[in-house]
Amino acid sequence: MTTLEDYLEKNAERIDKVIHRYFGDVHGDLFRASAHLLLAGGKRLRPAVVILAADAVRKGSSDDLIPAALALELTHNFTLIHDDIMDGDVVRRGVPTVHTVWDEPTAILAGDVLYAKAFEFICLSDAENPAKIRAVKMLARTCTDICEGQSMDMAFEKRDDVSELDYLEMVSKKTGVLYGASAAIGGILAGANPVQADALYQFGVNSGVAFQIQDDLIDLLASTEKSGKDRASDIREGKQTLIAIKAREKGLDLAPYRRELSGAEIDDLISLLQNAGIIEEVRAVAVERAVVAKQALSVLQDSEEKQILAEIADYFIDRGY
Amino acid sequence: MTTLEDYLEKNAERIDKVIHRYFGDVHGDLFRASAHLLLAGGKRLRPAVVILAADAVRKGSSDDLIPAALALELTHNFTLIHDDIMDGDVVRRGVPTVHTVWDEPTAILAGDVLYAKAFEFICLSDAENPAKIRAVKMLARTCTDICEGQSMDMAFEKRDDVSELDYLEMVSKKTGVLYGASAAIGGILAGANPVQADALYQFGVNSGVAFQIQDDLIDLLASTEKSGKDRASDIREGKQTLIAIKAREKGLDLAPYRRELSGAEIDDLISLLQNAGIIEEVRAVAVERAVVAKQALSVLQDSEEKQILAEIADYFIDRGY
Repeated sequence: MTTLEDYLEKNAERIDKVIHRYFGDVHGDLFRASAHLLLAGGKRLRPAVVILAADAVRKGSSDDLIPAALALELTHNFTLIHDDIMDGDVVRRGVPTVHTVWDEPTAILAGDVLYAKAFEFICLSDAENPAKIRAVKMLARTCTDICEGQSMDMAFEKRDDVSELDYLEMVSKKTGVLYGASAAIGGILAGANPVQADALYQFGVNSGVAFQIQDDLIDLLASTEKSGKDRASDIREGKQTLIAIKAREKGLDLAPYRRELSGAEIDDLISLLQNAGIIEEVRAVAVERAVVAKQALSVLQDSEEKQILAEIADYFIDRGY
Repeated sequence: MTTLEDYLEKNAERIDKVIHRYFGDVHGDLFRASAHLLLAGGKRLRPAVVILAADAVRKGSSDDLIPAALALELTHNFTLIHDDIMDGDVVRRGVPTVHTVWDEPTAILAGDVLYAKAFEFICLSDAENPAKIRAVKMLARTCTDICEGQSMDMAFEKRDDVSELDYLEMVSKKTGVLYGASAAIGGILAGANPVQADALYQFGVNSGVAFQIQDDLIDLLASTEKSGKDRASDIREGKQTLIAIKAREKGLDLAPYRRELSGAEIDDLISLLQNAGIIEEVRAVAVERAVVAKQALSVLQDSEEKQILAEIADYFIDRGY
């Protein structure tokens, strides 16, 4: 895994440099608010997927597509800024959220500015015009899907009958499609044919779903030091994760755990879920999605970049706890 | 003026039909919230400008550009939904605002959905690919400007030193550029050369600024029955309109009027502003902008559509009080 981690680190440095060039020295509250989360760092996974997909389709093509890689990171950041308002979250990437530092109106506008810049940067890539238009359309449809995913996620909080299928649709829209668009847009701008572009989209969506399921497992199983997050916060808040859904379907009532939990209580809960086979089943769904993601890549010629894409799908489900 | 009004009415019917086709029967809270304001009617002035600009550049071209005309209306509606949240407005187009019927998170997402659809519909127009990309870029830059204009407008509320120049920059961004983009995008997709596209943009921006200044005059001078709005609400709220700025520059203190005003008090205030020459000066700025807008059209060949565009600039400053 050293190779992948090295690759991702070098890629993040490259993207950070571009982010600093465009957003490092902006003026006025609005543009500073737009740049706030971007400048707080991040793994730049979506830009990495754009670049790898492009090079997997046509070696060397990614040099012309850095603006598009940035566009996908901007899209991700726009959704984070708006989601943080809706969810009332106060910390993100180790810094206070935009609406906390400024206010909600400024945060709404800061997200809207990044939204516009995402479309602008797609067009600033050096690619064939028909490919750019396909990329713009795909980004637009993806943004609609992401809004629908976030809307579903919020609606789920008021429901106690969310099925595994509902959950997978929500996660696919909220998290999966942006990885799908990252891979497909990278490929399309590099000249992918429709079969390749669709395969890359499927790779991304399935990887993204695997990523999100793993995130739910990390929330429960990882130590606070490792995840940087409050342990078992999803259970405490009664979130409809795959873990909670499978528990309910097996008649395991998690309602008594919707409160502050001690470390020992969380450990007991984990044992309970493990003994019921739930952790293993959820884990199997994530693994299955990573397998489907990697299988989708088979239409592409073998290359170093195709190999790294496959490693990314594995990395998404091997991230630690 | 009958011709123009007839034209605008027929155009609105045409756009309404397309809106109903795409947004009349949508499912789920999110998409119903997105469609809410769109279905509440409106004059569809921005689509009219798209269509007229296209036909002024190349007769008959607008038939292929209805999706782009719709895109500009969607952009306008997205900004209205988000602005209404920020400004806490509860009624728009005679219906409760989106965040009032649903809630703020749904309204944020509903605006975000229309934002995405705007870019998608630009691409769905039947036009040359390079023109579509220029149009996407222009729409993106315009959206950034609109965000900046709204941000300035909110910041002005906390300042008492806003100059005429500040005001004109704010209005140009908040209202002008979307008319500018409407005219330029219509022209570009119809095959306008850069000189024509720039002239159309200038036409739109200046018309839009004239429109907004007239709006400020209407707020003060029009009867409530005529405007449908609360009379002198800008003065009561201490808004930095051109009227308020010019009054301050002439040493006329409007602070005593930042309260509920009787009809007689408003009439007295109007006399005061008239005697100081302020109404006339503000009116002159609007007229000047309409003149500049019409002059910009001179690079286009004479046509019926060019004539109607000029009439629109006049209509913007002749709207009633």
